[in-house]
Order: sequence, then C-alpha cells, then structure tokens
Amino acid sequence: MYIVILAGGSGTRFWPLSRASKPKQLISITGDRTMLQRTVERVLPLKPKRILIITNKLQADETERQVAGYRGVHIDVIAEPSARNTAPAIGLAATIIASHDPTGVMVVLPADHFILDEDALRDTLLSAAQSARKGYLMTLGIMPSRPETGYGYIEAEMELRGEGPFPVKRFVEKPPLEDALRYLEAGNYFWNSGMFIWRTDTILAEMTIHMPALSRALTGISFDGDVWELSDLDGQIESVYSAVESISIDYGVMERSTKVQVVPVEMGWSDVGSWSALPEVQAPDENGTVCINTAGHVSLDSSDCLIYADGRTVATVGVHNLVIVSTADAILVCDRDRAQDVKKVVEELTRSGRTSCL
Amino acid sequence: MYIVILAGGSGTRFWPLSRASKPKQLISITGDRTMLQRTVERVLPLKPKRILIITNKLQADETERQVAGYRGVHIDVIAEPSARNTAPAIGLAATIIASHDPTGVMVVLPADHFILDEDALRDTLLSAAQSARKGYLMTLGIMPSRPETGYGYIEAEMELRGEGPFPVKRFVEKPPLEDALRYLEAGNYFWNSGMFIWRTDTILAEMTIHMPALSRALTGISFDGDVWELSDLDGQIESVYSAVESISIDYGVMERSTKVQVVPVEMGWSDVGSWSALPEVQAPDENGTVCINTAGHVSLDSSDCLIYADGRTVATVGVHNLVIVSTADAILVCDRDRAQDVKKVVEELTRSGRTSCL
Repeated sequence: MYIVILAGGSGTRFWPLSRASKPKQLISITGDRTMLQRTVERVLPLKPKRILIITNKLQADETERQVAGYRGVHIDVIAEPSARNTAPAIGLAATIIASHDPTGVMVVLPADHFILDEDALRDTLLSAAQSARKGYLMTLGIMPSRPETGYGYIEAEMELRGEGPFPVKRFVEKPPLEDALRYLEAGNYFWNSGMFIWRTDTILAEMTIHMPALSRALTGISFDGDVWELSDLDGQIESVYSAVESISIDYGVMERSTKVQVVPVEMGWSDVGSWSALPEVQAPDENGTVCINTAGHVSLDSSDCLIYADGRTVATVGVHNLVIVSTADAILVCDRDRAQDVKKVVEELTRSGRTSCL
Repeated sequence: MYIVILAGGSGTRFWPLSRASKPKQLISITGDRTMLQRTVERVLPLKPKRILIITNKLQADETERQVAGYRGVHIDVIAEPSARNTAPAIGLAATIIASHDPTGVMVVLPADHFILDEDALRDTLLSAAQSARKGYLMTLGIMPSRPETGYGYIEAEMELRGEGPFPVKRFVEKPPLEDALRYLEAGNYFWNSGMFIWRTDTILAEMTIHMPALSRALTGISFDGDVWELSDLDGQIESVYSAVESISIDYGVMERSTKVQVVPVEMGWSDVGSWSALPEVQAPDENGTVCINTAGHVSLDSSDCLIYADGRTVATVGVHNLVIVSTADAILVCDRDRAQDVKKVVEELTRSGRTSCL
C-alpha cells in the first residue's frame, strides 16, 4: 500500500496562526505535532511501502523538515510548480507509483484533517483496499452527525443496508440547510472526506477516459533509472503542470466514473475548516469554551469562546461566542459565527500591503 | 513652590498591562512616557523648588529609574514602609518641606491622572497658589462634562459666579446617577480631582486640629543636618507609619476644615480609572474604536472596541464594545461595561496562585 498525502493547501482561515509559508497542515492546532505529522503517524501502523507528500514550492522546505525524523519508512516530498487542484497531483502520484508497481494500491489523504478514532480509519482503509484491489475507485464517506452545510455529500445506493462498500449514486455540492437536514434523515448520504483508495492502474485508466488531456501529459513522463529519485523529474513535472488545467479529482473523475464506491466510516472526523471547528478537535469546558495552548484561563461570566493563546494567560470578562487567537505578532478577536470571514482579514492585510504578518 | 506627587497606587484595573511592580503610574498607556513621567514633566515649567514623590517600597526602584533623567530640578523619592492612604503621605511631605521652608507652598498631585490641557493646569495652580498663600486649603475641582457616577464631587458656595476660587460647602462621595444628573445641571458641583495646593504651615495646623494623632507622630520627626538627605529619615518614617492610621486627606482634613476653597478648572482631565477610560485619553476612530500601540488594525463590522496590542497587528471581526489588551504573557478580552471587573481577574489569579503574570 502506498500513501499519497495532499499537503499543498494554502488556507488562510487559521490566521494569525497559519501563515503563507505555514498553512494549516504545517501548524499544530491542538498539540505538539502538526496536522501533517499526525497524518503521517496515523498511517505508519499500516506499514506503507512509501509515502508521497505533494506540496508546493513555498512550503516544500518546511514540509521536508517536518517529516525528516520518521524512520523505517520512505517519505518523498514533491513540490508542485503551481497550484492545479487535486486531479493533477493525484495523477502525478499515480504515474510515479505505477512506474514502479503498476497495480499498486494507493491511498489518498488530505494532510489537514483531524481524526479522533485512528483505528477506525486504518480498519476502513484495509477493508476498502480489498474493493480497490478488485478495480473499484473507493472513497471514504463520513457518517454525518449534524446537518452540516459546509461539506459536500456522497449519496450511496443502499438498497441493502450493512457496512458497505456501496455504489455511489451521485456527489452533492455543499447543500442548503433544508437539503442537509433531509440527507441526515435519509441515512444514505455521507460527508465527502476527500480520502480515496484505488489501484494505480484503475485511476490512470479512468483518467484516460474522463481526463484525456491530463492523462496524455502524464503518459509523457519518462522514468529513467531509479524512479524514486524524484528530483530528476522536476523538469518533466514542470511541463506537465504548465500543460494541464486546474481541476479537482471529484469533478474530473469521481463524479463521472461508474467504478466509484463509498465505504461509510465513523471516526470523529473534522476537516477543521476554520477556528469555529475547534470544539470538534477538543471538548469544550463546562462553559462551552475551548482553550488551546494557554497558560491558564480566568473566565468571569464568559462562555462559548474558542481560545488559542500561544502560551499566554487569558482572561475573559462578560464575553460570549468569541474566537480569540494570539500569536507573537498578531491578535484576532472574531465573532464565532464569523470565523469563515477570517480569510477576509487576510485579504485586507494583503490588499493594504501589510504583509509582515501574513 | 514644592510639588508632592502621590505615586503609591497599586491599581490592578489595568491588568495585564499594569503589574504589582508596575502599577498604572509607572506604565505608559498612551505614549512613550509613563504617567508618572508625564506628571513630572507637566509641572517642570512651573520651576518647582523641589519635587517629592511618595511611593512604596515595591515600586521605589522603578520610580527612581523613571525620574532619574530630569535635569535642573531636585527630585526626591520617598518609599512609604506601608500603605496608609493619602493623609500620612501628605503630612509627611508637609513636615519635610516645612523643616526647610515653614511657609512654603506645596502642590499635591496624583501620579496617574491624564490631563490634556496642561497649560490650564499650570495656570490654575498659579492662581490657586495666591489663595494658598493667604492661608486657604485649595483644591482643584474639575468642571463635570457628564453625570459621572465614578467620581466624588465637591459642592461649591457660588452665590457670586465667576472663576472662583469658591468656598466649599461639602464633599460628596460617588453619587447615584440621579444625583449626578442633578449636580451636572446645578453648575456648582465639581469632580474631586485629588489635587491640592496650600502652605505647609496651613495644612500642618489643620492636621493638628483635625488629625491630632497623625500630627503628634509627625511632630516627633527630628531633622538633623541637611534635611534633603531623606534616606536619613527612613527609621523615623517607619515609626510614624507604624503609629498612624490609614486615612485619606479628604476624610481626615478636607471634609472638616473651614479653610477649604475650590478652583474650578477645565483641562481635559481623566483619572483613567480603567480600560474603559481610554476614549478620554485618545479620540476614537470613525467606528468608535480606540487603538493604542497596535501595528495596525483590520476592523470588519466591528465597533466601539478599546484595544491595546503591545505592538501587534489586531483584527476584529463582527465584535463590538470590547476591551482587548495583549502583553507578552497575557491577554484580556472584556466587555467594555465590565472594565471595573478586571480587578476581579487579578484577585482570581492571586487566589489560585497564578502569580507569574501579576
């Protein structure tokens, strides 16, 4: 089994903790390991043949640094020359793995998700690998726990109930609340986790059908000598990326292929999309407040705050429903329901040229 | 003219900026000079014969450091052995000055007030000094600009209007709002500024009448040689302080003496009693927000916040009416109407033994 970790995100919704050179996957929101490191450690017990991490040039050095310490596993970091969404990255990884192991099973994992029950993840991957070996494009579907409107959904064909896997009827974009409520009720809708597992020849064949241009570009890559000396590929990757369009694997393949199946899983998953997701990764205290990395919190008549304090002591007096984040050079105080708008703060700082804290 | 600056306050309402060893008068809330330094600089144009600063042992070193750089004026720092409110401090200063200059005029100023119009202060002191020379106990009364319930008031005998000074009818403790509204309307009520001016023999004679125990203790101090070598007095001050009770000059003398007069003054005064007083020392921006010591503020749908950010960039999103303060080791986020409760935060930190940030 090969692991491909997609680590090229440049998210701005965790400002001021996340920065241009340290996006969400490269920071530690909840503990001492970064999200990328936790993603790597989560799959080590599966004893993968190799781990490929796809990132971008700006973050490549820090990414290398963060995974340099793992023994007993080969980890390669590939820096994309430009952002092209997930399909080219996945196609490139599949092409590289296939050159070495044409029917190898590859797992695709985002680098910036939180998973509480890591055993459940590994068990599900092992079970999904069986279907992958039979030639299916497997995707992990998270059992929804609330009518979330911030995630995409996967509708499964579930005439026979059970543990799955199930054929996929359709992919649904982020739905309005009334639809999300209906999906939750229906029981055959799952959150689209962005985690996949398939044989390299299966995904490459499906790309030939559904993404012929990308497929042609990838087929042009010639491997010379030891295929795992990936730095030799830099020039060829550069030409592939200059030739292909930016497109997601969901849109490019998953929504079109007839070979897609979903395995439902319940594992305390969160994509930690903004500061407001902190309660999904750490249980709130008796006042509904989550404190991370504080030297202590004095709460007077305060509740439901999400606090990240960079080792500082925090006091809140008579305040509710706030996101409070402090770093060495910046402070954010935000209504909790406006956590998505933190990216607008980054836009405004960029627009006005105040880039020192970006 | 001698200046006596009362700098022994241990205020906790500016936590986390103020600390046990650096209370309000020893910090800079609005600029590069501390409140004590600004108090000293404010009176330098009056060319005082000497400046006496009364503080406590914990703050004496920092106080000395802050006033060490002033040339052309003698500044003495006296460390009280224990806190005894204002009457013993003022009595001690009067006794010391009188030993050198029995009818010298002394001005008493708190070290932690903000004054926008410093010319008005100096003009008023010069005019009040004339009445002081005639044997009156002069107090500065601030023309009220709002029905403030956080200050004490002085009711003046104003049958003849004019610039004053006026005899004082009575001192009023912090009033309820309906009384404060009436005082504002009446026109003969002034905020009690805690600023006084009198001859040393006048105040000492009034202390003999109204505070005989304190007076006896002070009379016992014997001056030997150069009276301005104040460190020689440490032992005697220690015994005076162990013998006298803790009492304010208002209660001990001003509310009882028949020689009290008030000079009204309008000078953009604030006692800066808590974070909520920031708009009194710096004008708010178009959103009603005051930013002090920030590297920039991004405000999205936010208003009426009071921000002190220790040189950091601050972003606020969808928040209103908050006090936001950050220092190297602590963060405060407080409802603006609860700024008085910051002292409860300090109490809680003390109670729970988290003294590193006190």
